[in-house]
Amino acid sequence: MVRGVLSGNTTLLSKTITLIESTLKSDIEKGNEVLEQCLKKKNNSIRVGITGVPGVGKSTFIETLGKQLIESGNKVAVLAVDPTSNQSKGSILGDKTRMESLVREKNAFIRPSPSSKSLGGVARKTREAIILCEAAGYNIVLIETVGVGQSEIAVHGMTDFFLLLKIAGAGDELQGIKRGIIEMADAIVINKSDGKNIKNTKLAAIEFRRALDLYPLKMDGWKPKVATCSSLDSKSVLSIWKIIEDYVKAMKQTSLLYKKRELQNKNWLLETIEEQLKINFYDNKKVIAALNSYIAKVIDKEISPFKAAEELLKLSEED
Amino acid sequence: MVRGVLSGNTTLLSKTITLIESTLKSDIEKGNEVLEQCLKKKNNSIRVGITGVPGVGKSTFIETLGKQLIESGNKVAVLAVDPTSNQSKGSILGDKTRMESLVREKNAFIRPSPSSKSLGGVARKTREAIILCEAAGYNIVLIETVGVGQSEIAVHGMTDFFLLLKIAGAGDELQGIKRGIIEMADAIVINKSDGKNIKNTKLAAIEFRRALDLYPLKMDGWKPKVATCSSLDSKSVLSIWKIIEDYVKAMKQTSLLYKKRELQNKNWLLETIEEQLKINFYDNKKVIAALNSYIAKVIDKEISPFKAAEELLKLSEED
Repeated sequence: MVRGVLSGNTTLLSKTITLIESTLKSDIEKGNEVLEQCLKKKNNSIRVGITGVPGVGKSTFIETLGKQLIESGNKVAVLAVDPTSNQSKGSILGDKTRMESLVREKNAFIRPSPSSKSLGGVARKTREAIILCEAAGYNIVLIETVGVGQSEIAVHGMTDFFLLLKIAGAGDELQGIKRGIIEMADAIVINKSDGKNIKNTKLAAIEFRRALDLYPLKMDGWKPKVATCSSLDSKSVLSIWKIIEDYVKAMKQTSLLYKKRELQNKNWLLETIEEQLKINFYDNKKVIAALNSYIAKVIDKEISPFKAAEELLKLSEED
Repeated sequence: MVRGVLSGNTTLLSKTITLIESTLKSDIEKGNEVLEQCLKKKNNSIRVGITGVPGVGKSTFIETLGKQLIESGNKVAVLAVDPTSNQSKGSILGDKTRMESLVREKNAFIRPSPSSKSLGGVARKTREAIILCEAAGYNIVLIETVGVGQSEIAVHGMTDFFLLLKIAGAGDELQGIKRGIIEMADAIVINKSDGKNIKNTKLAAIEFRRALDLYPLKMDGWKPKVATCSSLDSKSVLSIWKIIEDYVKAMKQTSLLYKKRELQNKNWLLETIEEQLKINFYDNKKVIAALNSYIAKVIDKEISPFKAAEELLKLSEED
């Protein structure tokens, strides 16, 4: 399996990702061994998070971008993070017809969102899938999220660059983007800037630039860029990629790109630990049996939160 | 002690808060018993979080507001949350001369930030102090934070209304307010709107209104208000309090105020549990001895984060 992944065999890459998504204990152990090997492979990948609410044109943007990047000699992996989806409901990339022509490219690898009970689980599996894709030679990894929840914070914490797609509309507030997501963006791109819509998107871009002016520079000194784009026009999409390249170049010069990744790896460790602590607690049979009645008692003020926490923690340690 | 607190004795209230801030096991047990009793007391309090960076005029604002509220027959408690402070350095309300005249009021109770190693610890103690103050008959609790870190999220999660104080300046980005805090605000108040500064604050208010227009309504349907204020003018400060009263009235009509508190209590329980899980882990002697070398190995890619997490978790369970 390790050899298969390292040689870029997509069937084995798919199988390995399925393995790490499994919740069977034997699979997890096997998966961790493969990951352990893959993690050591050096690579120069660029990891880009792309978010935006449904209808903003993420699929078309990614398809156009992916095809252009492949044409310039890159290998492109597309992963999706959507904790609200599950296999039966279908995930955002599950409907593969949405990226029809990219799917057919030899140097593209597309993988829908892993299903998991918790966001922490989805995030962990996505991080692991990134490692596997990079080991398989994909030098550009695009991670798509739906822009409506906490998952953006997770994806922001595992990518080099975070791109927010928007469309110009009758009042941006109608687009339902979550508060806080705008803050994380390294670039805000107003998509669907074609035909009659060009004027609107340019106006929206001006508004966003003004709004961003109210915030301080990011820690890495980067000032988030605002641009318009038409996903129907490959030149337009490539001009967005240019922003990302500029970012990567600037961050490599100051070594901040590597420092960011080191910090992400440290956080990855601490998050893994803290996620596992919670799983061990909430999966404890005695806790499962008692938690809801404790929550009800806390809400009814029959017991204090600290007393309830103390008793639940004691229960979990009895096992 | 319970009787003392419930009768509104400020000396005993102070002593009880000191008790819950103690890290001695016997004190914690005693403190929890007192809290247990106090939690049951019904009250109609309003909890307001007030944040803003140093220099924005929080103390003067709170002093003017507090005195006016007391004059209208309220009992006002002022608590501070500042995880960066510790007793030796002094906390934001430690320098009591900053609220000279409010301190002298019989119906005011002012308490500096508890010191603790972790934000979770500070947050927990502040929540407990709120309960004690309310049990002692304080029907308005103002919680001050310094607006430069994570503590605002914690305070947002324990208050009914979250107020952000700002001043108009040469480019708001220079004020160093953290990204994300603006998103949590139920009202943004541009302070120091007096004399020559009136024009500037009004312009700043317009800018903020425009920026807030880019975001959707809050979950409770409230549209954050933007207003100017001069803390030197009690009428001006009371007009800000009117916004808070309007909010409370609207939320009581739809019962959302109680639902928000119920949710906060549930989160309080879960946060207490998760904080305690982390404390138990990171305070574990074997973990303390090994953690840094594991972090270094993860950064150097000598070991994967999941493998390192697994080994550290095993270490912690050996005790």
